[in-house]
Amino acid sequence: MSDTLKNDLLLRALLREPTPRRPVWLMRQAGRYLPEYRATRTRAGGFLEMCTNPEIACEITLQPVDRFPLDAAILFSDILTIPHAMNLGLEFEAGEGPKFEFPVRTPADIDKLGVPDPGQELKYVTEAVSRVRRELAGRVPLIGFAGSPWTVATYMVEGGSSKTFGVIKRMMYESPRELHRLLELLAKATILYLNAQIEAGAQAVMLFDTWGGVLTPAQYEEFSLRHMAQVIDALTRQSGGRRVPNIVFTKGGGAWLGKIAAIGCDAVGVDWTTDLSDARKAVAGRVALQGNLDPSALFAPPDTLRRETLRVLDSYGPGPGHVFNLGHGITPDVDPERVALLVETVRGYQVPGG
Amino acid sequence: MSDTLKNDLLLRALLREPTPRRPVWLMRQAGRYLPEYRATRTRAGGFLEMCTNPEIACEITLQPVDRFPLDAAILFSDILTIPHAMNLGLEFEAGEGPKFEFPVRTPADIDKLGVPDPGQELKYVTEAVSRVRRELAGRVPLIGFAGSPWTVATYMVEGGSSKTFGVIKRMMYESPRELHRLLELLAKATILYLNAQIEAGAQAVMLFDTWGGVLTPAQYEEFSLRHMAQVIDALTRQSGGRRVPNIVFTKGGGAWLGKIAAIGCDAVGVDWTTDLSDARKAVAGRVALQGNLDPSALFAPPDTLRRETLRVLDSYGPGPGHVFNLGHGITPDVDPERVALLVETVRGYQVPGG
Repeated sequence: MSDTLKNDLLLRALLREPTPRRPVWLMRQAGRYLPEYRATRTRAGGFLEMCTNPEIACEITLQPVDRFPLDAAILFSDILTIPHAMNLGLEFEAGEGPKFEFPVRTPADIDKLGVPDPGQELKYVTEAVSRVRRELAGRVPLIGFAGSPWTVATYMVEGGSSKTFGVIKRMMYESPRELHRLLELLAKATILYLNAQIEAGAQAVMLFDTWGGVLTPAQYEEFSLRHMAQVIDALTRQSGGRRVPNIVFTKGGGAWLGKIAAIGCDAVGVDWTTDLSDARKAVAGRVALQGNLDPSALFAPPDTLRRETLRVLDSYGPGPGHVFNLGHGITPDVDPERVALLVETVRGYQVPGG
Repeated sequence: MSDTLKNDLLLRALLREPTPRRPVWLMRQAGRYLPEYRATRTRAGGFLEMCTNPEIACEITLQPVDRFPLDAAILFSDILTIPHAMNLGLEFEAGEGPKFEFPVRTPADIDKLGVPDPGQELKYVTEAVSRVRRELAGRVPLIGFAGSPWTVATYMVEGGSSKTFGVIKRMMYESPRELHRLLELLAKATILYLNAQIEAGAQAVMLFDTWGGVLTPAQYEEFSLRHMAQVIDALTRQSGGRRVPNIVFTKGGGAWLGKIAAIGCDAVGVDWTTDLSDARKAVAGRVALQGNLDPSALFAPPDTLRRETLRVLDSYGPGPGHVFNLGHGITPDVDPERVALLVETVRGYQVPGG
């Protein structure tokens, strides 16, 4: 990958280097709120079909970057690609969320799991990465990602989405060693997977810990953070002559930002329930911060949306190290015009103190 | 109500008075995990039928108090009794959660709402309270409760449960004044409702703010906390010659415990994602704390459950002002034997420093 990066604001902000303005991208920016996404989805036939087809995954990844002047592309994929590669019978039923035909609940179930080879079972992902890099031709950097071991494990053990996480929490209390065995396996798979994405051209990577926030503080450290630390520790740091920054995002992890910052990641994602000013105090300059507009603010009238966006920008305060984002993914019923306004507002913001 | 209270540990702990041991009760202690509850439910025909029948509501309220040596009874009821009394067509379909036939979404919808008279439309609740007090005959105090205005409004506006709260958040951004009008109305209704429960015999009252945690810090203060403060402010403080303590519980409100304590309530509920030692620092001795064992710990083997229970007790530290509880309601698949063990463990705990 030797194309020159024309816009490296994201990479610099993630490493807390000064930038002339704050970079912006949005979680789930390639999603159902875009009519072009819905058209592609109809053509492809389903969500998994889109993820596993590099040509389509590339097309969808580029849609928001073609439409809005965003500062990053994020690979269109899913956090469940790893268990999908473990042959657990993943399905996405319309409006139902993911379901696994073969949930992982016993020591024997864990014994059966292998660590997927990213060059084989997950080749569709690295192919999509290469293809996106080629198509982007250095316009903006490409972010790769994976689910955190804990978050991926919740789906594997529960057999899909959950409200109470009763099955995996029971495993946590009854067989903590077995659960750690599963999490270790997922950490290993995640390391190989993210490093393969980096090798294929991902210029930054992000760990999504969507369900770390359902744990007690002690459980969070033991069952989620520890295994994310293991992943962060083993990531490739340089590629194509540049540092590859990493981001850790625990939804509902507002109380633990300082602990997350201490694992050695470059940036920490913040959901909308914590003020960035407080988040910044908690991480004490150790990491960059990414976030954190309430995704529902995209339903607000234009003036309110602009005001809320500026409030988030102001709340970070002066100095480098802020990547503007939502506090969670865009929802399907958002008007793309509002996204355009949001991006324009961030781009027009005068950074106090660089 | 002139019966002498034989066990007033709860009331004393909620007012931060010393007690020989820490009181314990459990959110949703009268619930589906009890076979006697399931039997009554089958007989009654449904959830709403149980809530609205004082004789059955009384029977269910007493079930956990008869089975375990708990230090309080909590009225069997629901946080949606107020909108039910507003004739919004509430239904509970099996396994589906609550649904409103007539959601409240426009100014005209709000115009139509009246403040229910607790002596009329909610008479079944005050009758249940009187009946429970009579049957308890001073064994333990009875806790009355209501949902917070914000939390009740989420169900009314969304038309039921929600994952993203997109409809009410849209209203919050588009028509904040209308939403405040709805919340004011609910605050008024809640004041009348809780004071009627107190008059009928409730010896402590609790506000359940189950969904305050989905808001940003600024929104939480404006749309949830402010209206809870209004309720707390207007509650009857004395009844039957005793102070009637109140408890405010925002699930997911760990970052805002100090702000909650400042509204003038007597006690603050804490979910399992915050350590009680940190919670205690946050409230700085202004209020008692109630919580906060992870409800899933009830799935743990006995030794682990005992250890986790002791960990919560220890985490509060010495001195009065701790009411032991879960961090959220008991789930239906819990073994009652585990609840017995939990209660026994709390009762046997030697309080450091009273």
